[in-house]
Amino acid sequence: MKTASRVDDIRPFYVMDLLSRAKQLEQSGKSIVHMEVGEPDFTTAQPIIDAATKALAGGQIKYTHAAGLTQLRERISRFYADSYEVNIDPGRLFITPGASGALMLALAMLINPGDEVLLPDPCYPCNRNFIRLFEGRPVLIPVDGLMSYQLGADLIDRYWNASTSGTIVASPSNPTGTMLSSGQLQSVIDAVKSHDGWVISDEIYHGLVYEEQMHSALEFDDTNTLVINSFSKYFGMTGWRLGWLAVPEALIDSAEKLMQNLFISSSSIAQAAALCAFDGDTLSILEERRLAFQTRRDYLYNALQSLGFSISCKPEGAFYIYADCHQLAESSDQLASDLLEHAGVAVTPGRDFGDYRHNQHIRFAYTTSLENLKQGVERIARYLQKA
Amino acid sequence: MKTASRVDDIRPFYVMDLLSRAKQLEQSGKSIVHMEVGEPDFTTAQPIIDAATKALAGGQIKYTHAAGLTQLRERISRFYADSYEVNIDPGRLFITPGASGALMLALAMLINPGDEVLLPDPCYPCNRNFIRLFEGRPVLIPVDGLMSYQLGADLIDRYWNASTSGTIVASPSNPTGTMLSSGQLQSVIDAVKSHDGWVISDEIYHGLVYEEQMHSALEFDDTNTLVINSFSKYFGMTGWRLGWLAVPEALIDSAEKLMQNLFISSSSIAQAAALCAFDGDTLSILEERRLAFQTRRDYLYNALQSLGFSISCKPEGAFYIYADCHQLAESSDQLASDLLEHAGVAVTPGRDFGDYRHNQHIRFAYTTSLENLKQGVERIARYLQKA
Repeated sequence: MKTASRVDDIRPFYVMDLLSRAKQLEQSGKSIVHMEVGEPDFTTAQPIIDAATKALAGGQIKYTHAAGLTQLRERISRFYADSYEVNIDPGRLFITPGASGALMLALAMLINPGDEVLLPDPCYPCNRNFIRLFEGRPVLIPVDGLMSYQLGADLIDRYWNASTSGTIVASPSNPTGTMLSSGQLQSVIDAVKSHDGWVISDEIYHGLVYEEQMHSALEFDDTNTLVINSFSKYFGMTGWRLGWLAVPEALIDSAEKLMQNLFISSSSIAQAAALCAFDGDTLSILEERRLAFQTRRDYLYNALQSLGFSISCKPEGAFYIYADCHQLAESSDQLASDLLEHAGVAVTPGRDFGDYRHNQHIRFAYTTSLENLKQGVERIARYLQKA
Repeated sequence: MKTASRVDDIRPFYVMDLLSRAKQLEQSGKSIVHMEVGEPDFTTAQPIIDAATKALAGGQIKYTHAAGLTQLRERISRFYADSYEVNIDPGRLFITPGASGALMLALAMLINPGDEVLLPDPCYPCNRNFIRLFEGRPVLIPVDGLMSYQLGADLIDRYWNASTSGTIVASPSNPTGTMLSSGQLQSVIDAVKSHDGWVISDEIYHGLVYEEQMHSALEFDDTNTLVINSFSKYFGMTGWRLGWLAVPEALIDSAEKLMQNLFISSSSIAQAAALCAFDGDTLSILEERRLAFQTRRDYLYNALQSLGFSISCKPEGAFYIYADCHQLAESSDQLASDLLEHAGVAVTPGRDFGDYRHNQHIRFAYTTSLENLKQGVERIARYLQKA
């Protein structure tokens, strides 16, 4: 029986092997500090849990409209007005099963077989795999700290060819935590539009931003730009699987019929719960957490540099630090493995995020308490002294 | 900006327009009997809701393992042992966001661009659209009541060519409610295997079966067959979005890495709740409901024939009757529209299920109370007398 060749081109996440090994070690009694996980340690805020409990009791557990609950689409539209001063018709907002569903929906609408899509290297690994899923070709463009690990208009222009159809940008970025300023975002969009292409703006870490003002790509364009956001990260609803996609008006009908076919609908319980995600009492809990993340970032950013890691770009958002380890180890694969086995610290090697200098980099996630981070840093320090 | 040509080939569900119109009519004060909905009217069984409430209180709301909760995979494995006397390693079972997620996962692993996939016409409309999504070509094979609206080995052999990669069968079928006997299932699988192809067996209506013994394709093959099932229909968990896919051992690694990329994980709350879906107290509630569906089927099957609809195959499962209306109306599109506007009854025209004689057929769903069904039949009778 023949299987699809796309599967051969899709790599499993390297960190999954590390996770399995970490679990093994924990089961054998070893303590592991987890700095590899892309999931907030905070549980979902109580008002959201309470809303879900109420929805369950009230029987709100049937299919919703394929595009999502009208009320939730309206609430998100209001969020854009309040947070970004931009007016988005709720009809342009599609409620998806996580940001993964949003990315799938967007690329299913945009990619023809053979289409090239420009991505910064390093970037979120699922991007290239989703592109391959729909028979497109991810084009990884090396970026470094000098460019905030982001694509600029110059790179877009340089790499654009007759087969290119669009680009995916992420601000704040996973794995680097770096952002695009409003000027950069505008110029990337302008460059792509000059080629009649599309931009997908991944904004799933919006809210978890520590200094800069946040800007949504929706502020700068309403014809060629699609925006992905999620209730997972800032809103702390990972396991609920809920996100959204904002599309230009011209794509509303396409998005609607693809939603019907791909998903039928997103989780009704998660949607009912998310209705209170933007309420004042929820937001004040989330603001406390944001400040906790900021404290962790400040600590870890300094501590890692003291240990000899080089961090060329201070992360401005998300909960990751992408650190250069080439002065400390031959390869980040080896270092990640050694830290797990000999220091009891789990991290993600650069390999999962691209090809460019991946073996010099490690991603640290500060998704665990300050106390745990300190413990982790101490363990790494001790390991490096011995090594 | 160019969009993907696959989108042009994906049709929206015709019934969605009817649903919108039904809602309009209801808002203007008209009463509508809904016989178009593919969703059980029963709410989720209380033990499942209670388990979800408990999971929420206990904070079981983080990402799970991409393949699903180990406990749930083991529970489903036990379900196969108990219900079908077949031994399926839990490692072959992947917990997906609904049967939609299972179908997506399966076809992503199996379809290369240009591959042909054999489908009975009529069948579930998303099948052909998912095939198109991955650049495959759905081949609709006309079937009728004489063949229980199912593909047989003879048709598989006749339509198989060098581009064919597999087939999707469904038993019980949507829209016809007909089933494949164990002998038929075996011979379809044998035919496909003789061509080195694959079979996807859609078993999402298992449990809702009224006379025949149920057989899973997993009883007959463990190398070329993938089985889709769901917590939506029999288990009454539609809006929760939870299903599963059983794969041959050779596909475990592929399924695992695709799950990581496509979904990250399925809803943790739904998974925690589904753990008690197979418990005795839940099953006794579901058995009562099954009997209610059977009573409705028996009533509607006779009543529709009295009205002049012709039903060439008594449905043995699911909650649908696929009725031939050519002696009553010029076209099923027109009849569906007229029944909605002039009789206050919503049904699904054949158009949504394929091309073959679709305009002679209407799908009735008995997903509403016996009382409502009687009301609906009366209204149709009155309308037909006047027409």
